[in-house]
Amino acid sequence: MHISHGRSGQPSEQRTATFTGTVHLDPVMMVPGVMINTVIFTPGARTYWHRHPGGQLLVVTAGTGGDVVWAEPGEEHWHGACGDSLLTHLAVSHGTTEWGGEVGESDYTAAQP
Amino acid sequence: MHISHGRSGQPSEQRTATFTGTVHLDPVMMVPGVMINTVIFTPGARTYWHRHPGGQLLVVTAGTGGDVVWAEPGEEHWHGACGDSLLTHLAVSHGTTEWGGEVGESDYTAAQP
Repeated sequence: MHISHGRSGQPSEQRTATFTGTVHLDPVMMVPGVMINTVIFTPGARTYWHRHPGGQLLVVTAGTGGDVVWAEPGEEHWHGACGDSLLTHLAVSHGTTEWGGEVGESDYTAAQP
Repeated sequence: MHISHGRSGQPSEQRTATFTGTVHLDPVMMVPGVMINTVIFTPGARTYWHRHPGGQLLVVTAGTGGDVVWAEPGEEHWHGACGDSLLTHLAVSHGTTEWGGEVGESDYTAAQP
């Protein structure tokens, strides 16, 4: 049994590679094959395209209410904030993330609600 | 990609078998091999002993602040509220739950903080 009181104790880190815009990450827990982080995206910020060999669960904790998202193993995807709002989510990532390229402005704009 | 806006649309259900006390469950999402539920425990309520073949992630959303718990694949465990407080958590269960017996009062009392 592994218990984390919200964070692992490792310092929060600002992420730059494989992210667009301002993104901060708080490590919560690592267990074999599973990495759990709290991630904060400022408006306009997002990940690059990527895949998780074992899939990924996102639990939105701020920005929109209570959404839970499952990305299938190997499914190429990205996530991030809207242009005018923050996003915080818990990310539960199964397997080593395989990163692709940046999400272009047109793809990002097309995804706005 | 599967997206749930907090719940799957199935009705909330009160759970009796394999639970002690008053426990309500809201299905959030089911994907192959993974079952995600929001579970509310009233004071004193708890699960029976059980194991998850692929492990289980709990994300506490009310009752204590922000705790994240990982139960190893096959690890026998239980979870529930304290005697004097509510508990709400998101439960991400990998594989079909294998249920054991009820958690006795002495075990429950010994686990109080």
